[in-house]
Amino acid sequence: MTTALPAPTALRERAAQLDADDALAPLRERYLLPPDVVYLDGNSLGPLPAAVPPVLSDVVTRQWGTDLIGSWNVNGWWEAPLRVGDAIGALIGAAPGQTVAGDSTSVQLFTALDAAAALRPDRPLLVTDPGHFPTDRYLADAVARRRGLDVCRVSPADLPRFLETEGARVAVVSYSPVDFRTGELYDVRALTRAAHEAGSLALWDLCHAAGALPLDVDTLGVDLAVGCGYKFLSGGPGAPAFLYVARRHHASLETPLPGWTGHADPFGLRRDYTPAPGIARARIGTPPILPLLALEAALTAFDGVDMTQVRDKSLSLTGFFLRCAEELLTPEGFTPVTPAEPGRRGSQVTLRHPHAHGLTLALAQRAVIADMRAPDLLRFGVNALYTSHQDLLTAALRLRDIAHEAAYDPTPPPPGTVT
Amino acid sequence: MTTALPAPTALRERAAQLDADDALAPLRERYLLPPDVVYLDGNSLGPLPAAVPPVLSDVVTRQWGTDLIGSWNVNGWWEAPLRVGDAIGALIGAAPGQTVAGDSTSVQLFTALDAAAALRPDRPLLVTDPGHFPTDRYLADAVARRRGLDVCRVSPADLPRFLETEGARVAVVSYSPVDFRTGELYDVRALTRAAHEAGSLALWDLCHAAGALPLDVDTLGVDLAVGCGYKFLSGGPGAPAFLYVARRHHASLETPLPGWTGHADPFGLRRDYTPAPGIARARIGTPPILPLLALEAALTAFDGVDMTQVRDKSLSLTGFFLRCAEELLTPEGFTPVTPAEPGRRGSQVTLRHPHAHGLTLALAQRAVIADMRAPDLLRFGVNALYTSHQDLLTAALRLRDIAHEAAYDPTPPPPGTVT
Repeated sequence: MTTALPAPTALRERAAQLDADDALAPLRERYLLPPDVVYLDGNSLGPLPAAVPPVLSDVVTRQWGTDLIGSWNVNGWWEAPLRVGDAIGALIGAAPGQTVAGDSTSVQLFTALDAAAALRPDRPLLVTDPGHFPTDRYLADAVARRRGLDVCRVSPADLPRFLETEGARVAVVSYSPVDFRTGELYDVRALTRAAHEAGSLALWDLCHAAGALPLDVDTLGVDLAVGCGYKFLSGGPGAPAFLYVARRHHASLETPLPGWTGHADPFGLRRDYTPAPGIARARIGTPPILPLLALEAALTAFDGVDMTQVRDKSLSLTGFFLRCAEELLTPEGFTPVTPAEPGRRGSQVTLRHPHAHGLTLALAQRAVIADMRAPDLLRFGVNALYTSHQDLLTAALRLRDIAHEAAYDPTPPPPGTVT
Repeated sequence: MTTALPAPTALRERAAQLDADDALAPLRERYLLPPDVVYLDGNSLGPLPAAVPPVLSDVVTRQWGTDLIGSWNVNGWWEAPLRVGDAIGALIGAAPGQTVAGDSTSVQLFTALDAAAALRPDRPLLVTDPGHFPTDRYLADAVARRRGLDVCRVSPADLPRFLETEGARVAVVSYSPVDFRTGELYDVRALTRAAHEAGSLALWDLCHAAGALPLDVDTLGVDLAVGCGYKFLSGGPGAPAFLYVARRHHASLETPLPGWTGHADPFGLRRDYTPAPGIARARIGTPPILPLLALEAALTAFDGVDMTQVRDKSLSLTGFFLRCAEELLTPEGFTPVTPAEPGRRGSQVTLRHPHAHGLTLALAQRAVIADMRAPDLLRFGVNALYTSHQDLLTAALRLRDIAHEAAYDPTPPPPGTVT
């Protein structure tokens, strides 16, 4: 066994200085992070916010247990999807009344893609990112098949040029601000504008962006957006997702799943479906109260937090980790994949290594939690509300030691492994 | 103010005797019912099972809080939709591997209706109950519109005759065993057989049946079924729903929402969707772990419980309440709507009164929780696991007093009231 390599003093001092100057450092107390663990997987599952357990206990024991069915009125359960939607809206730059929370991201994506296609009925193309998260791709294919559309897979870099020639035939472009594998940040403003200049709609999947960086969906004129509640929003595993639809589209919005709670008079037991006014028509079934109110509590971790400060710290964190990677990990065979240019980075750093799976497992055994995406990417998510620069140096040092000592299993994971 | 009328001694004695002879009475301790409240709305929201709070606390604090992302493996989160599905399957007569839990009933209905239509592609009719719960009707209309089918609204009583003439054109018949308003129980066996004789599929919405009476979906050859987790299963407000698809249909099952978790290799990040084998292909998005594991805990209230005993006691309860209604409430202007014949009763008794809304509110003020369905129905749900005959006598006596004293507000609810 090789002796662990010494830590470069300059990096230690830099981490200490950056953390000492960090105005957001006290926010870490809003999360119940296990001691002695460096958690860099909040871009997959956010950690437990301190506000959640007492709220959830109250929801279960008092609201459900004691107030029972009356809670739909007295404890505000009925309005929860719109109330929590507005709370998320505040983090993505959406004025109230345009965001609804509930269901999974996949269901919300289906709704958004289908509704967008219905808003541009004479246009036969649905354009999406060939590198989009699988569910985005599968659901784009499914919606296109059902509606007789064609899917064009165009990378974000090529989208403006594509729209110049084909734009008049494009109903909707569906992209994510942040590539879930590489952490690359795309230009939401420019791509939305390009879509609009072609007369098509812009649909954004904000899973890796909401809560991580400022988003101005209203100002940028985004048409529809979806996102999940369990990454940077820390709403809990499989937390309810959200759907944003710009107000100008509400009156003509037709959703593919007209469930009873989206009806204009849900308790009127009407024969036919009449959509509720506004974003309420995007409600589907009975709302999932337990996780919805857990998510609502989780969002209070953002109370009083300025998203531009979050972005600044996030860039400081990822920039520092890229520096650590360059000094400590590149010599051990890791290749940074995330762009070095700050304006092109989301809130994650990705490193390539052929033994990503074994390295991630070995790192977890040394109390640093990251994750991998097949076949060869290690992902390190940072969240400005609780990640410190010291966390990132610790992660880089332990990963360097593991690689240097070859203290990991190089066997690739069997197919179907949950990663 | 009128003096309260005396309680008929015979009913009191009968209630005491029936409760004394009730072998299921100890099960009541499996639920945390508030003292001094008679809860007869478990057919809308089941009460809190005692097993839920400690499990949910462990899920939040230890699994999410401490084990974090690793819980997908070490705490069995990934398999939860299938594991909880199987637990529900055991209550509806489904062998393992045919039921998945997750999403809302509306989403599962959409999936079931659409998948059923796809399994019978040359048949242009979708047949459903004109008295079906609104979401069932709206989603049938939506699926039919998308697939170019026609919806025929045929009452359960008329279905066999309808199928004799039109059956060869029917893709699927979509019904509920129990009418959510009247509590009438239909003949699932006969209607399923009639559908099959016509070569069409039978889809059952078990919201008001699962956990309330024995169901034999496998034995009866039911093709697809859906149901909710929050009524007789007591999984919590907006608990995950379930979808059952008979094994013989799995290989050709195409779902309308091919989300990433239903993929054969969900972590392989494949370009195209390849459905998982078996019922796993009906998974959609990231599973809602908090409410799913709350539901799993809730289902343990059924451990060791024989559903035929549940049915026997449920009939004893509803039969006794109908007798109470006849003696105490009919003279005050209430009309029982639920069939007197035991074989035609679900686990609910419905009474008609023109002031159903005001009476339900006044009853709640006297600690008896029932509900109403517009415009004039009062519903009293019984659950053999915790309802006693004494509960029902108390409810009938208080309702009689309220009506006799005219101690309620006869104003109808404004449109949009959450009831």
